[in-house]
Amino acid sequence: MPGENRMIWHVQLHSSSSAHLYSTILAKIFLMEGRKAGESFIIMNEFVLPNDTNTFGNLMGGRLMYWMDIAASMSAARHCNFPCMTASVDNLSFKNSIKLGNVVHIEAKVSRAFTTSMEVHLKVWGEDIVHQYRYESNEAYFTFVALDPAGKPRPVQPLITETEEEKLLYESALRRRQLRLILAGKMMPHDASELKALFVKD
Amino acid sequence: MPGENRMIWHVQLHSSSSAHLYSTILAKIFLMEGRKAGESFIIMNEFVLPNDTNTFGNLMGGRLMYWMDIAASMSAARHCNFPCMTASVDNLSFKNSIKLGNVVHIEAKVSRAFTTSMEVHLKVWGEDIVHQYRYESNEAYFTFVALDPAGKPRPVQPLITETEEEKLLYESALRRRQLRLILAGKMMPHDASELKALFVKD
Amino acid sequence: MPGENRMIWHVQLHSSSSAHLYSTILAKIFLMEGRKAGESFIIMNEFVLPNDTNTFGNLMGGRLMYWMDIAASMSAARHCNFPCMTASVDNLSFKNSIKLGNVVHIEAKVSRAFTTSMEVHLKVWGEDIVHQYRYESNEAYFTFVALDPAGKPRPVQPLITETEEEKLLYESALRRRQLRLILAGKMMPHDASELKALFVKD
Amino acid sequence: MPGENRMIWHVQLHSSSSAHLYSTILAKIFLMEGRKAGESFIIMNEFVLPNDTNTFGNLMGGRLMYWMDIAASMSAARHCNFPCMTASVDNLSFKNSIKLGNVVHIEAKVSRAFTTSMEVHLKVWGEDIVHQYRYESNEAYFTFVALDPAGKPRPVQPLITETEEEKLLYESALRRRQLRLILAGKMMPHDASELKALFVKD
Amino acid sequence: MPGENRMIWHVQLHSSSSAHLYSTILAKIFLMEGRKAGESFIIMNEFVLPNDTNTFGNLMGGRLMYWMDIAASMSAARHCNFPCMTASVDNLSFKNSIKLGNVVHIEAKVSRAFTTSMEVHLKVWGEDIVHQYRYESNEAYFTFVALDPAGKPRPVQPLITETEEEKLLYESALRRRQLRLILAGKMMPHDASELKALFVKD
Amino acid sequence: MPGENRMIWHVQLHSSSSAHLYSTILAKIFLMEGRKAGESFIIMNEFVLPNDTNTFGNLMGGRLMYWMDIAASMSAARHCNFPCMTASVDNLSFKNSIKLGNVVHIEAKVSRAFTTSMEVHLKVWGEDIVHQYRYESNEAYFTFVALDPAGKPRPVQPLITETEEEKLLYESALRRRQLRLILAGKMMPHDASELKALFVKD
Repeated sequence: MPGENRMIWHVQLHSSSSAHLYSTILAKIFLMEGRKAGESFIIMNEFVLPNDTNTFGNLMGGRLMYWMDIAASMSAARHCNFPCMTASVDNLSFKNSIKLGNVVHIEAKVSRAFTTSMEVHLKVWGEDIVHQYRYESNEAYFTFVALDPAGKPRPVQPLITETEEEKLLYESALRRRQLRLILAGKMMPHDASELKALFVKD
Repeated sequence: MPGENRMIWHVQLHSSSSAHLYSTILAKIFLMEGRKAGESFIIMNEFVLPNDTNTFGNLMGGRLMYWMDIAASMSAARHCNFPCMTASVDNLSFKNSIKLGNVVHIEAKVSRAFTTSMEVHLKVWGEDIVHQYRYESNEAYFTFVALDPAGKPRPVQPLITETEEEKLLYESALRRRQLRLILAGKMMPHDASELKALFVKD
Repeated sequence: MPGENRMIWHVQLHSSSSAHLYSTILAKIFLMEGRKAGESFIIMNEFVLPNDTNTFGNLMGGRLMYWMDIAASMSAARHCNFPCMTASVDNLSFKNSIKLGNVVHIEAKVSRAFTTSMEVHLKVWGEDIVHQYRYESNEAYFTFVALDPAGKPRPVQPLITETEEEKLLYESALRRRQLRLILAGKMMPHDASELKALFVKD
Repeated sequence: MPGENRMIWHVQLHSSSSAHLYSTILAKIFLMEGRKAGESFIIMNEFVLPNDTNTFGNLMGGRLMYWMDIAASMSAARHCNFPCMTASVDNLSFKNSIKLGNVVHIEAKVSRAFTTSMEVHLKVWGEDIVHQYRYESNEAYFTFVALDPAGKPRPVQPLITETEEEKLLYESALRRRQLRLILAGKMMPHDASELKALFVKD
Repeated sequence: MPGENRMIWHVQLHSSSSAHLYSTILAKIFLMEGRKAGESFIIMNEFVLPNDTNTFGNLMGGRLMYWMDIAASMSAARHCNFPCMTASVDNLSFKNSIKLGNVVHIEAKVSRAFTTSMEVHLKVWGEDIVHQYRYESNEAYFTFVALDPAGKPRPVQPLITETEEEKLLYESALRRRQLRLILAGKMMPHDASELKALFVKD
Repeated sequence: MPGENRMIWHVQLHSSSSAHLYSTILAKIFLMEGRKAGESFIIMNEFVLPNDTNTFGNLMGGRLMYWMDIAASMSAARHCNFPCMTASVDNLSFKNSIKLGNVVHIEAKVSRAFTTSMEVHLKVWGEDIVHQYRYESNEAYFTFVALDPAGKPRPVQPLITETEEEKLLYESALRRRQLRLILAGKMMPHDASELKALFVKD
């Protein structure tokens, strides 16, 4: 199964106390050393049912965002092993509408971890099983915050990238973060050096 | 009721054929002359129920986006009188989490109409009815496309702004549109004159 | 936004303790002096989706009552600032059926407060956005009881009416209450002086 | 099973064409002769799940009305063998709140058939399975209209009552109907002879 | 109503403490003496709505199993008066598909009680109300375990059978249990004497 | 992404007519040659929300079966490229209950194709993300029938097995099929040679 390479505890349920002990130790190790991006990889497949569609028989954007949020929060929780809450969603653009009866295929993976937050990268396809083709719906970035039992943000382990794509997403995350801060009014545009470089040709 | 100032047909249902005639004429007039922003104003109030929350008892981001998409699509449809489909969602940032049992209050209004698409501006609050305070959740922009019966984009009437806020949102819509085009890879950053000005102090 | 005239605390979430203090003081003031009907005004807009309809593509009565109950309970809770429970629903008569893809528009406002219960007045329309007309669905009265944390009824503040319509609804509430008591077997018809006058011309 | 005494066609699905023939003939016979009240008897049992409750863990009134409407419409459809639509709901009074995890038990039976409409009588209990008691929630009357494929009202067969309770409900149906007509503004109170007698002692 | 013959406490809610006392005593008596199969009889009727169907307009198997599980768990809980959890589901075979707009009729009754578990027998029909025929969907066996407040299995009272059908189901339950144990890898086929007899003609 | 090795048409949506042509040709090739088991592999991840649980906070069996049915039907449809309908579900045994807030992880893959039906093999785990362990819930077999537009069964391509596990599941499918036929009353136990061998030691 996917995730066979994940470091995970296949414990018997009746020894959950020792599982807890191990996971506490493990959490500490992770916090220092970081965790591989691939371990947070999540796949979701959903059927488009009548109530998910508008009067044209197309999947409603809001219903798709609901599924994407659930997939992304599972991915973030897998990286940090804490419950997570959606902090922000980057610009989303729907390329093709997904039809009633088609399958929505969502893939989510953490692209960068900051102090207490994580950026999750999502890819979404529609799949027409009968005619056997798959079409792109959108690509997105959701940001999550890890929470302690009191609901306060808590530190998360760093992300270790392995593939080329992971490394690229990791680096471009800074630029997306600057954009988020500007759009949330927490950074002045001319202080965003990463972004500014895009607009100004020297 | 809100919308008393809307030009609307209070027809008897048994005369729906004449209603159809009038609305066809009306549609043509609107297409030339435009329609007031205030006529697309939509309010939604929803209770946060157990299934809308995560294990912390906070409203899940995805569930909120689902409601926002429905409110925004009703607003867009009211402006153009055609069914609409979500084309894109701008950067969303959740400021405060909304609690189980609280009320979500959403307001949506069209902020600018382009050729076949409309930008809808949303404001979202949480409301704790028992302790009597209201707190901001987020502010967002959704873009919708009007569709004809064959599912193809069709022209929409221009937007007429009246209040100061409406005029400001109307003007800044160009800047947001450039950002959307850049992020969707359809415009080069240094061609986005509106945006570029933000990053470069002359 | 609607309710701008509402006396409401726009507090920062990090000062919720002082918000609590203020709201306790406020609650006491309200209990003596009463609260304006307009402050309990609630608007709900919902899209009719496939699962809300019968095989004719019409909104099912039960689904509409579900939404009306939620709108009415938000209105009652806004008046008394306590959680509320549905106590009774007056005679409901559906005039026009609402179609799949149309919008349900619900307005609710408290029409009278009794010792521990409140009567909420609702108006419901269907709206065909494409053909631009709006048609009446029904008008109704729901009664709610305010509950303390132990689930026992608790006193609510009196209602202050301002408009002509509010005053009329306030006065006729007594007559509706007598009818409720008779129908629940708690009052003898010939003791219901308000109602009796309707049936007997002197 | 309940309804063993119902005249029903246990046909094989592959002979649905002859089933259709028989049912057409049957429909004609029924329309002349009427149908027994007991044949429209419907039972529904539902578990109260988290999303059906308010913050007190009590079943919300609107959710209960949703279930009652479905039970009642199945009962009406069984009497007339046509799809039915909710026309009105009589005064509802909730006596005891039903708890999370309890069972809602609903019974529905047609109490009188008019020209194109039917009145359905409902009884609702809550059932605490663990502590083994059952408590009354409410008793109600819903009215339904039978529809032809064009959505127009169509004649329904008369009701044949057998038990004492059925006969009582049948007779009191006229009184409830007068009340409905008065409350819908379609009858003057002093013309409602059945009702008037209740208010005036000679 | 069905279950009139059930030994049940029609108590007033304000005497729930004495109800609790009685039920504790009752529980002890039941545990020794057993309880009649007929007392666990449950009926469920559900309408097939758009979201319950696949693209052919047929009820999805998974949705039907969801309803069957709820009906069966209510039946098991009625027998033992404890909350119950699904332990296993026997081979299910769907004979006819149930159509959109039809009614699903489910009947459930405990067929045998073991030490801490109960087998529930289910029968499911589809009902086309308009054309007046009823068709078999499937017949099934679900097994439930009774749980104490700590979530541990607890003893249940024996089952008392009365009708011929109840006695037959009671006896064949042993055979089905052996099959379940073999399929779960907890029994060797050649030790299953009841089952073995079916395969080997002496 | 998983399924990179799937032979799939990444077509542009505006050339769907040629996609249709290709897929028709492809379907014919497949029908002769068969298709690899791995191409039907489906992963589903779902969060357990409040409404999915019983009063113990454990995922209800019926809700899990609903998800399993959807995952399995997506897998079957991927193998045959036609819409599919659930025909039967083999004995299911739930080993550990899955908790509120945990993740349900479902994997489905076609294990054997017969003339018009396919057997799908499912594995289900619960995953406690916070404490980082994963526990087995159950392993199951669902059978689906491929349908043509008239709702009649249609031929499906044979299955090509590659891994050891796939070959084992393929072979044991005959035994499971005999058991299904016996349990559905369509085969006599002593004719089931595959099964009989299990019960009789020579």
